[in-house]
Amino acid sequence: MVFDKDNPVSNLSNGNKTERDLQGEGGGGGPRSFVYDNPILSLSNDSLKNRHSADFQGSRDFILINENYSSDSKWKSCMPWLKQKIANKCTKKTLYKRLPILTWLPKYDRQCAIGDLLAGITVGLMVIPQALAYSGIAGVPTQYGLYGSFLGCIVYIFFGGCKDVPMGPTAIASLLTYQAVRGVSTEHALLLCFLTGVVQVLMGIFGLGFLVDFISGPVSSGFTSAVALIILTSQVRDILGVTASGSVFTEMWGNIFRNIHETNAWDTVLGICCIAVLLIMRIIGQLKIGSNKGGVEETKLQLFANKFLWLFSTARNAIVVIVCGFIGYSFQQNGDSPFQLIGAVPSGLPNFQLPPFGFTQSVNGTEIYYSFLDMVSDLGTGIIVTPLISLLETIAICKAFANGKAVDATQELLAIGLANVANSFVQAFPGGGALARSAVNNASGVRTPLGGLYTGLLVILALLYFTPYFQYIPKSSLAAIIIAAVIFMVEVKVVKPMWRSKKSDLFLGLATFIACLVLPLEIGILVGIGLNLLFILYHAARPKISVEKLTSHEGTEYLILTPDRCLIFPSTDYVRNLVTKHSIRQGIPVVIDCSHIYGADFTAATVVESLTKDFAARDQPLLFYNLKPSVSAVFEGVSPQDFVVFYNQDQLDELLRKKQPEKPTNDLV
Amino acid sequence: MVFDKDNPVSNLSNGNKTERDLQGEGGGGGPRSFVYDNPILSLSNDSLKNRHSADFQGSRDFILINENYSSDSKWKSCMPWLKQKIANKCTKKTLYKRLPILTWLPKYDRQCAIGDLLAGITVGLMVIPQALAYSGIAGVPTQYGLYGSFLGCIVYIFFGGCKDVPMGPTAIASLLTYQAVRGVSTEHALLLCFLTGVVQVLMGIFGLGFLVDFISGPVSSGFTSAVALIILTSQVRDILGVTASGSVFTEMWGNIFRNIHETNAWDTVLGICCIAVLLIMRIIGQLKIGSNKGGVEETKLQLFANKFLWLFSTARNAIVVIVCGFIGYSFQQNGDSPFQLIGAVPSGLPNFQLPPFGFTQSVNGTEIYYSFLDMVSDLGTGIIVTPLISLLETIAICKAFANGKAVDATQELLAIGLANVANSFVQAFPGGGALARSAVNNASGVRTPLGGLYTGLLVILALLYFTPYFQYIPKSSLAAIIIAAVIFMVEVKVVKPMWRSKKSDLFLGLATFIACLVLPLEIGILVGIGLNLLFILYHAARPKISVEKLTSHEGTEYLILTPDRCLIFPSTDYVRNLVTKHSIRQGIPVVIDCSHIYGADFTAATVVESLTKDFAARDQPLLFYNLKPSVSAVFEGVSPQDFVVFYNQDQLDELLRKKQPEKPTNDLV
Repeated sequence: MVFDKDNPVSNLSNGNKTERDLQGEGGGGGPRSFVYDNPILSLSNDSLKNRHSADFQGSRDFILINENYSSDSKWKSCMPWLKQKIANKCTKKTLYKRLPILTWLPKYDRQCAIGDLLAGITVGLMVIPQALAYSGIAGVPTQYGLYGSFLGCIVYIFFGGCKDVPMGPTAIASLLTYQAVRGVSTEHALLLCFLTGVVQVLMGIFGLGFLVDFISGPVSSGFTSAVALIILTSQVRDILGVTASGSVFTEMWGNIFRNIHETNAWDTVLGICCIAVLLIMRIIGQLKIGSNKGGVEETKLQLFANKFLWLFSTARNAIVVIVCGFIGYSFQQNGDSPFQLIGAVPSGLPNFQLPPFGFTQSVNGTEIYYSFLDMVSDLGTGIIVTPLISLLETIAICKAFANGKAVDATQELLAIGLANVANSFVQAFPGGGALARSAVNNASGVRTPLGGLYTGLLVILALLYFTPYFQYIPKSSLAAIIIAAVIFMVEVKVVKPMWRSKKSDLFLGLATFIACLVLPLEIGILVGIGLNLLFILYHAARPKISVEKLTSHEGTEYLILTPDRCLIFPSTDYVRNLVTKHSIRQGIPVVIDCSHIYGADFTAATVVESLTKDFAARDQPLLFYNLKPSVSAVFEGVSPQDFVVFYNQDQLDELLRKKQPEKPTNDLV
Repeated sequence: MVFDKDNPVSNLSNGNKTERDLQGEGGGGGPRSFVYDNPILSLSNDSLKNRHSADFQGSRDFILINENYSSDSKWKSCMPWLKQKIANKCTKKTLYKRLPILTWLPKYDRQCAIGDLLAGITVGLMVIPQALAYSGIAGVPTQYGLYGSFLGCIVYIFFGGCKDVPMGPTAIASLLTYQAVRGVSTEHALLLCFLTGVVQVLMGIFGLGFLVDFISGPVSSGFTSAVALIILTSQVRDILGVTASGSVFTEMWGNIFRNIHETNAWDTVLGICCIAVLLIMRIIGQLKIGSNKGGVEETKLQLFANKFLWLFSTARNAIVVIVCGFIGYSFQQNGDSPFQLIGAVPSGLPNFQLPPFGFTQSVNGTEIYYSFLDMVSDLGTGIIVTPLISLLETIAICKAFANGKAVDATQELLAIGLANVANSFVQAFPGGGALARSAVNNASGVRTPLGGLYTGLLVILALLYFTPYFQYIPKSSLAAIIIAAVIFMVEVKVVKPMWRSKKSDLFLGLATFIACLVLPLEIGILVGIGLNLLFILYHAARPKISVEKLTSHEGTEYLILTPDRCLIFPSTDYVRNLVTKHSIRQGIPVVIDCSHIYGADFTAATVVESLTKDFAARDQPLLFYNLKPSVSAVFEGVSPQDFVVFYNQDQLDELLRKKQPEKPTNDLV
């Protein structure tokens, strides 16, 4: 029995009939139209008539939307819908969406050119030492970092949707590469780059960018912090000049302490000095000479000085590398250098060739052939985790600089995917957008993705003309650069707001952090994501139900139970047991307030059916209040016998009067 | 800024302060008390004052519950709470809960005794042929089925909470045993019985009975139907008298068709006849002589005839087995039997001994030693799936006959767990409550779990005195018994309501059904459960948001967005993008109606923070309506700058007037 507007107490004992009516119930077209009492109406009853446009989003069974959700018409409209979908994919709009360069290039002017040139060169000065250093993290020869820093930038210009993303090697992607390759061979890293790109492009084509949504803030923070600590550890090794293998955090520290006696004092002193210098230079960049706090305008000199300090701070990596390179060079000239140097870096651009789909490696004199499948099985889950995490990093950058605009995850996937594929043809390892470089890019006044062109050109210049000088750079200075960068990746500052906001999220973040430290990185983040999904499942399984005793207008007491979310299978028995317990204890009519129930499934429907049956057997009235039509349709699908829905107080009074004949109602009215 | 009752437009720019207040907000004790506008109030505004008892359930942050959820007090109260918890576990009430026999035995009377005796014997007549047949499904010698049919029943009397559950071998558990053991050895089946019991008891102790909640109705239907078809297939093999190995449905049919030429005509004819007879006898039991439709009372003769027909129908398995046994015996006496007989069944009770934790098997003359770990790794996921599915089956029975009372999953776990452990000491394979037998049990008028005693005694009698006669029973007659039972387990009848109720659930049921047929059974059900959980995750990731344009009392237009469920991490970016898109398009003040938001997490809080920042940068007002205090506390945890919550129309008017100074408000008032 379902009440409607025109006929408040119409008894439709035929469940099937009612269900049809319910399903066909639409925008007032049919003879029966429901008055679903939307709680929002209590906000502005007066403006109810003023409601005009009813735009909507999301799936079709949301309560506030008047539309016809007959299943027949849905099936029939499937084919035209598909055609429409395909047509939509081939419009000019889609072309502009997929090739963002078409949008900004026609509007390109002198202002943009200057901004991009300055930003591109600044980022270039930053990326060259970083590229050298990240090769070490990834466990490949030094030049491969540079190989990954020019073509990708240029490809990103065409497809990238975010002007601030400087495509290139990143700390996280380098570490993931190292963990996936496990030092087997450089060829594995190159193939991983190709596969990362392919997986990203495929994810873009199939619209799987939403997978990033399943990595929550706390998990991402825990992961990033763990990555920072792992990278830091791997660099401490270089600063001390000890040999220590291992890819898991605990294992690495164990090996470092075991070999601590090998410490090279020269390397250690240089490394620590470099870190100190870098941190001081970083602080200098944040200083402001002649602060304009007092409302006084900056003088031209102050402006220039501030600009200079900022540039000096931003180029700190390059400066430190050049200075240390000179130190290394002068020691080398005067005999043997006491530092570990990075050694000879091959000069010139890499060959443009296919990534290795199979290769032969000679180990201890025997030739081992690795087929494509061997390599893929060696890389394992890295093939999925590396693209996803690179995407996560890139999307995080886009969001940070989007100024509230929506970020198109699909487009970013395509852009960094294609950039990685291109990079794999010039012997690079996987990369993405790096947060530190993008901050510099943004601060340098980049206007369009074209800034990447200048970065790329600078890297090409370096490869062509500067590589002979790179060999004198001490390893510990590169390690210092990395350490001075990654210590700011340990997200200590989110702990406090997380604790204040939601303690369980802090626990999750910590759990992810620890899992990433003690397990291989990709397993660690999967553990974090898994735990997080368990929270969602628990949410679905244990709705909150409030129980209150109310009195109707006519003085009849009734129990009102209000579940606060959808009724789906993991929660149905819990809800049934609660409802049964309270109903039997009180023995008065029971109303279930369904205002918050936004969805239900077949399991819930069977439980509602058995509840109505139990209540009928006990002769206790069970009424459903404010059930939205789409959920009602689900419940009616199993044709429950004594299923009564009402939508306002008058209907309730009438129902309670009818259902309790033993109470003389005339006493009360 | 958060509005409160006493001071409608108090501007608390200090986010921290507000958050403290919010967190401390309790039952009206503090100076600031919120008026969370609960939609239910629209149902009975008048009876608002009449609300008295506020009983509640579920987690602590539900909107309708006034209580103090200060985090400090929670931590402090942890230790006493733990003590309380332990004290609660050791009360008399718990003892009665864990030993249900204490509740019903003192009230035991002659009526109960008669009911239990009749039901026990009836079920006994049913279980003996079933036990012989199920041994065949499990792939163990015939007597093991009987071994599992007496001790478990008796243990269940003490611990079982449901009078209708006849503990013993079941079709599903037998098939799971067969698939886990894969014919390696009977010892594996006995160990599986022990481990199943242990896992069930442990699950009971750790309160993991809720895991059954994650098997939804459609998945369970799909699984049961697939099990029925697989069992049917395995029995078709016996009826045709062909040899066909394989455990997966498709494989089994393939082998049957390959060996169809081996068909034994005698077996086939006997089997088909038996099935026909059994089905006819089943229908006879549902007949009613002298129906009392016309209001005429049944005569004594009619009553007796009906009772007799019912008993005749219920004992049909025993009757068919006895008749076929005689046929087999007479053929055997006159020379060689043309039927495949089940062969000699060892007489007497099994030894009471430890289940095998290791044994030596001789294969082709070589002795192979299986250690405990070998056996466990052979059994694989069967160790988890068998206990879970047996529990599912038992719980389903309890629910079917609970008459609306709550079913205690923990107690059932303990009861069938202990029964299985006990059974493993008398060489049984895993079992549980069987639906068909429990229906007979209920219909025979069972009053208490003591009925199991008589069933157990009957089985002991059979083992002691009747086993010599069992050897003449033709295999195909047992196969016929199984087939005539399992065809009713194919749940065709749920398809229609499922289609009407929720089409996606029908898809899920079908997917589980097919997965169980083409994959090993335990993988099949895991696939089904996994798919189902994906639905929940999708639910969490894509909330529905309605967008409407309203006009305030004072004529200001604003956009109102209403998400229909909690804001947690997989959905936050989706919501942010939607809100941003619509807000930028419309450019008018935006109100987010949070009436339906029952929960939020840190990720959502950071998104809300960045949304408020974006809106502030655009100078567009963003207001939150009806945010419940617990969610507000989560958002305030990240100290958002321009976070405004209001709870009624007047506050909205005031806010809109303040926020839009460019519109002369005096025109409108």
